[in-house]
Amino acid sequence: MKFCTNCGKPLIEQIPIGDDRVRYVCPFCNTVHYENPKMVVGCIPEWKNQILLCKRAIEPGLGKWTLPAGYLEKGESVAEGARREAWEEAYARLNHLTPYGIFNLAFVSQVYIMFRCQLIDTDFRPGEESLSVRLFNEDEIPWADLAFTVIEKSLTLYFHDRKKGIFAVHMEDIEPRQRL
Amino acid sequence: MKFCTNCGKPLIEQIPIGDDRVRYVCPFCNTVHYENPKMVVGCIPEWKNQILLCKRAIEPGLGKWTLPAGYLEKGESVAEGARREAWEEAYARLNHLTPYGIFNLAFVSQVYIMFRCQLIDTDFRPGEESLSVRLFNEDEIPWADLAFTVIEKSLTLYFHDRKKGIFAVHMEDIEPRQRL
Repeated sequence: MKFCTNCGKPLIEQIPIGDDRVRYVCPFCNTVHYENPKMVVGCIPEWKNQILLCKRAIEPGLGKWTLPAGYLEKGESVAEGARREAWEEAYARLNHLTPYGIFNLAFVSQVYIMFRCQLIDTDFRPGEESLSVRLFNEDEIPWADLAFTVIEKSLTLYFHDRKKGIFAVHMEDIEPRQRL
Repeated sequence: MKFCTNCGKPLIEQIPIGDDRVRYVCPFCNTVHYENPKMVVGCIPEWKNQILLCKRAIEPGLGKWTLPAGYLEKGESVAEGARREAWEEAYARLNHLTPYGIFNLAFVSQVYIMFRCQLIDTDFRPGEESLSVRLFNEDEIPWADLAFTVIEKSLTLYFHDRKKGIFAVHMEDIEPRQRL
């Protein structure tokens, strides 16, 4: 962030009066530019005993598998955002969205909210950001080819809970993936 | 938003290629300025049978009562943010934070995540944004003087669940308050 969104003049980094952290501040019109974490909303779509995954057509994670998820937009509820993302990435329609996980990705200032949900039908197909979408049984999940750590964590918790027959609401901190 | 944060030139409103909604776009350097909902994190601090509320020293809601809550900052987990807000507003220290509610305030593009938690001690006092902080029994809650609808909803659900002895994780859409 280099220029003021209000007057176009160069910004400086400064702790505003009454604040306790450095912000981008405009020394000309005094606008403070707050930067806040972004919310990502996604889901674990169930069909009978199977789970829907999408093969990514874009970076990051091109060619890897993921759950439908993306940035929440202004004016949306978190469930509406999760429905929209499932539609955009897989033309999948969802029922019975239930909060399942709150995942902190503090290293990229993102918070994921993941839902469990049911697919309404199997009339899904790849959206523009997906190369392929398909249902997976648990023993078919491509664990080594999942796009993001938060997806791996969501699915690990999900199958663990499913075995127990009890789905808790989870809250976890996700660390950056270790690259070997 | 009027000027580009990257080059300081005037922005236009446009649907970027591959996108489906209007964004602020710079016609000079092509930077797309995404605007996303903000997360608010807060808590319902318990001490024995009582709940901690703060009387607001600032607008909006000056002089009204609220639960400790505020914007999540970059690099924080949602629980860390809730702890920080309780400290800033009431010098309250928290234990055992448990997710309790996800509240959509789509009309202001905010998502609240509220926790239940225990106060570690009663050594709390007003922070800069509070006129007063104190513990309330259920029958003392100043329902007519709560600052925000989402606080009223959080407390209503909380006391309802407490009577049943079962605390669910709630997800609710909050509508703008009706002014009579």
